[in-house]
Amino acid sequence: MTEMLLPTSAAVAPGEISGAWLARFGAALEERNSGAVEGLFLPDGWWRDLLAFTWDLRTFSGSQAIAEAFRSTLDTIWPSRFGLTPGKDPTLVEPDPGTRWVQAFFDFETAVGRGVGFLRLMPAGTEPGAPWKAWTVLTTLDELKGFEEPSGPRRAHGVAHGEHRGRRSWLEQRRDEQSLTGGDPTVVVVGAGQGGLTIAARLKQLGVDTLVVERNPRVGDNWRNRYRSLVLHDPVWYDHLPYLPFPAHWPVFTPKDKLADWFESYASAMELNVWVGTEFLGGDYDDGAGRWVVRIHQPDGTERTLRPRHVVLATGINGVPHVPEIPGASDFAGVWCHSSDHSSGRNFAGRRAVVVGSGTSGHDIAQDFYEQGVDVTLVQRSSTYVLSSKNGIAVLLGGLYEEGGPPVEDADLMLSSFPFPVVGQLHVGATKVLAEMDAELLAGLEGAGFKLDFGEDGSGLFMKLLTRGGGFYIDVGASTLIAEGKIKIKRGVGIERLERDGVVFTDGTTLPADIVVLATGYQNMRESARVLLGDDVADRCQPVWGLDHEGELRTIWRRSGHPGLWFMGGNLQQARTYSKFLALQIKAIEEGLIPQA
Amino acid sequence: MTEMLLPTSAAVAPGEISGAWLARFGAALEERNSGAVEGLFLPDGWWRDLLAFTWDLRTFSGSQAIAEAFRSTLDTIWPSRFGLTPGKDPTLVEPDPGTRWVQAFFDFETAVGRGVGFLRLMPAGTEPGAPWKAWTVLTTLDELKGFEEPSGPRRAHGVAHGEHRGRRSWLEQRRDEQSLTGGDPTVVVVGAGQGGLTIAARLKQLGVDTLVVERNPRVGDNWRNRYRSLVLHDPVWYDHLPYLPFPAHWPVFTPKDKLADWFESYASAMELNVWVGTEFLGGDYDDGAGRWVVRIHQPDGTERTLRPRHVVLATGINGVPHVPEIPGASDFAGVWCHSSDHSSGRNFAGRRAVVVGSGTSGHDIAQDFYEQGVDVTLVQRSSTYVLSSKNGIAVLLGGLYEEGGPPVEDADLMLSSFPFPVVGQLHVGATKVLAEMDAELLAGLEGAGFKLDFGEDGSGLFMKLLTRGGGFYIDVGASTLIAEGKIKIKRGVGIERLERDGVVFTDGTTLPADIVVLATGYQNMRESARVLLGDDVADRCQPVWGLDHEGELRTIWRRSGHPGLWFMGGNLQQARTYSKFLALQIKAIEEGLIPQA
Repeated sequence: MTEMLLPTSAAVAPGEISGAWLARFGAALEERNSGAVEGLFLPDGWWRDLLAFTWDLRTFSGSQAIAEAFRSTLDTIWPSRFGLTPGKDPTLVEPDPGTRWVQAFFDFETAVGRGVGFLRLMPAGTEPGAPWKAWTVLTTLDELKGFEEPSGPRRAHGVAHGEHRGRRSWLEQRRDEQSLTGGDPTVVVVGAGQGGLTIAARLKQLGVDTLVVERNPRVGDNWRNRYRSLVLHDPVWYDHLPYLPFPAHWPVFTPKDKLADWFESYASAMELNVWVGTEFLGGDYDDGAGRWVVRIHQPDGTERTLRPRHVVLATGINGVPHVPEIPGASDFAGVWCHSSDHSSGRNFAGRRAVVVGSGTSGHDIAQDFYEQGVDVTLVQRSSTYVLSSKNGIAVLLGGLYEEGGPPVEDADLMLSSFPFPVVGQLHVGATKVLAEMDAELLAGLEGAGFKLDFGEDGSGLFMKLLTRGGGFYIDVGASTLIAEGKIKIKRGVGIERLERDGVVFTDGTTLPADIVVLATGYQNMRESARVLLGDDVADRCQPVWGLDHEGELRTIWRRSGHPGLWFMGGNLQQARTYSKFLALQIKAIEEGLIPQA
Repeated sequence: MTEMLLPTSAAVAPGEISGAWLARFGAALEERNSGAVEGLFLPDGWWRDLLAFTWDLRTFSGSQAIAEAFRSTLDTIWPSRFGLTPGKDPTLVEPDPGTRWVQAFFDFETAVGRGVGFLRLMPAGTEPGAPWKAWTVLTTLDELKGFEEPSGPRRAHGVAHGEHRGRRSWLEQRRDEQSLTGGDPTVVVVGAGQGGLTIAARLKQLGVDTLVVERNPRVGDNWRNRYRSLVLHDPVWYDHLPYLPFPAHWPVFTPKDKLADWFESYASAMELNVWVGTEFLGGDYDDGAGRWVVRIHQPDGTERTLRPRHVVLATGINGVPHVPEIPGASDFAGVWCHSSDHSSGRNFAGRRAVVVGSGTSGHDIAQDFYEQGVDVTLVQRSSTYVLSSKNGIAVLLGGLYEEGGPPVEDADLMLSSFPFPVVGQLHVGATKVLAEMDAELLAGLEGAGFKLDFGEDGSGLFMKLLTRGGGFYIDVGASTLIAEGKIKIKRGVGIERLERDGVVFTDGTTLPADIVVLATGYQNMRESARVLLGDDVADRCQPVWGLDHEGELRTIWRRSGHPGLWFMGGNLQQARTYSKFLALQIKAIEEGLIPQA
């Protein structure tokens, strides 16, 4: 008799487990058996769908709700051909003793497109042999059949070989496109920051005629014009633009002017039609025609009318500054401005500065003042979440965005696969770990009178980013300066008024000042719509950012409430990830796959 | 008794064969046993070394000469740690029945650097069990210890976190570099085409201060200024610049203006110091000081003197036009120019053009004339090698530069691993195969009176490129127009003189013409040195291009005969590949690893 060495029942085979689950999941969907779907999810499991099934960005929680949501889509979506993604091996993840899951990338098709997804399976119970059920499933639309992007094997030829009488050169064709010789663009994008550039690049690859209007003289000026010392606080692996990743020698942290130059190169290499020095004046929507009439002001002083089907507002989280009313400002002998108008502390050496607001800009600007020899006080109105750059990047982005990490498209899919409420839950633990790693830093801050928080329910950075777009500081030096008293802290107050020589705070105390910088943030993007398109349009939109009842972000990257009006934005990672889904929605509308309104 | 299934003796295990050979090779070199080296090569084997052993670009043929060449280097080079490159599996190649080899990438070290190489082993005889010996071995210097490039895990941080009083921003530092605030650059590069940009990028990554002077107003103008219809005849996979590959949606064939814009983006992204609108006026070399005194003319009209250690002439294969003497040109009522000054046939519709020269430019320009409605005659003075784009690219670049091919650095190493004389031998067969595939095209050309050749000894395209830089045409349409009589051919003659209304040929025949374009090529790059630096300097240099007695290219990318003077150039593939080795030579000189002269 031969002794045979077999895997023990305790050994986990991620490929087999996920392959078997996916086979049953695919069969259930193809058979439109939503009851079977319910049994494949943990009772408290999650399904996130980015367009593939719902043509929207949606999150469903609980196996019953998930099954119901699938049921309502199957008759129109016709999902099929589910399979593990070739070349990407499923893996077992054990973040801590007692927690483990199997995760895998998968592919599928629908009636009109091809999708990619990511699943996480956990044992449905502690007994041996408990079935593996889905904790999280992400489904995303990757491309539309017949409208695949011209990349790699599908790339353009670049020249028509053979005889072509009266042939036009690439340059002549590019000039035609850039000057709209062919007529109105299908899409007008307002703003050429990362939001505008990424959506324009995605639409270009989908063959949707797009014009970007940018009021500044150069692409990238939205970054160039910000304060002199600005360097991205996110690392390079997180910040790639789609299609054209940063090269391998790119620094970990990108200075603003270097990013601005890259944006300019990006617009050129991607052949984006950007009109710089061009102001978007406003527009009206014709519900009947399903078109906008928008007016723009061109650099030569003339006004021009365009009739696009879609307007994408990519005016930035940092669109309309939030400037609190400040009585007495006209009496103030010094300089005061919003952070968006501030450049450098260099001309204030030996003098006194007050910086109001303790987010990223407030900290950076205060540090610059100090380093330029300015006596600086940071006014912290409420509380702030602080984490160190070194530990924060390793803990929060490690395994996804790091040197030698997965391809950025894979990392984006994996990050997107956690519904935002799950991110919030998971990050409670990560935030605690970080607070322990940063204990000395945080103790120093508290010792200096700085008030810390750790986000809603202790969920830390990401949820602050998603819900508020601020209220945190990734420390790159200012926190130590605060702890050492080099940047002074004035806490728990706001500015009551300015006087000739300084600031009077809401608690009645005063500080002399030669310059006051209001790092008080920006207004909701819906206010940009109000400024640009008027109340009628803005009132049809939902507020932008913040989570809806499902845990998805409101309004941005998805239908806004107003037909043909879209909000685009976010940091570089978000712009990269979600520009794809916004572009696919517009393309699907233009191809008649889904309705305009 | 158990039946065991073993590999048959006929089966080839590439990993074992190359691993065993490399172990013996490495041991022989470490023991400085050049006799053992001799026995590891086929009697008619080849060794090519790019800097690693010889600090030059060298080819040695025959096992005895190879062993002798190794012997002369081992006492100073101290090679060690030979091993197959991890992650790159050795493979068996069987290009046709009866021919087979095993090929493998390998790594090694020397006293001062790390090297990568590529080997091909063949059985030394037909009998079973014949030992595998080296047919070709390439050794290249990959990096210098202590001067590794700041890429990937070594990338720069981008910002100094923490407290830094008086900190300067990235923009301020870049402006300092660009304006040479720190003093004279170590290297002045003349010309910002692919040669100038690639050597500047390599030197930048090695930390060598470099200034590029470009007489045109914009980077890329060397391409923009060429004839309107120009599109690269090489495909995208062959044409990447180092560090910043073309993205996946880049077209197969790059139009000149698109390439020019990419060059401009490249200079920005790579942070190259390029002074545009700046003319290199000349220079003198101080042998004692080991420095140049060069004069440049700046856009503001002033002259400036710089004292670099090195001057790199990257003025292009297309540097000084070769313009034959043409008697009677002043009598000619039409337009005549060299191809470098010609833009488009568009303004000559309905009129008559004569294009002299049947290389790439001549064909492209003739095709443009025809497509713009011009009556055009192409003057073929001798003979031309013609191959179709479709078949030529597949046959000559297939397996190396193609969609889904190996990483471009690997492809470059594999291509470099064939010494040029071997390329010539191998391409005799490929050229025959191509001629059969293109039989209809070639027959049509001959029927139209066009004279074909197939390169020296029938070796086709690459040897023409290496030895002449021209004399061929990769057909993208003009050949069919010639075969169909749409582009007329005048063969075997030159221009005797111009008359008022047209051309008189050397055979006494005449042709009326409204425009004559001389696509007659360019002078040897040494003539660029003569124009820019005078006879004394030029006479110390060898001629540039063409093969030396070993089969290496003369003078370009290696010591020129004049200390501190280097020639850089070639097509995009060559510029990418050899800029690395030129930069390493300059870096090694500057670090005192090898002498300046």
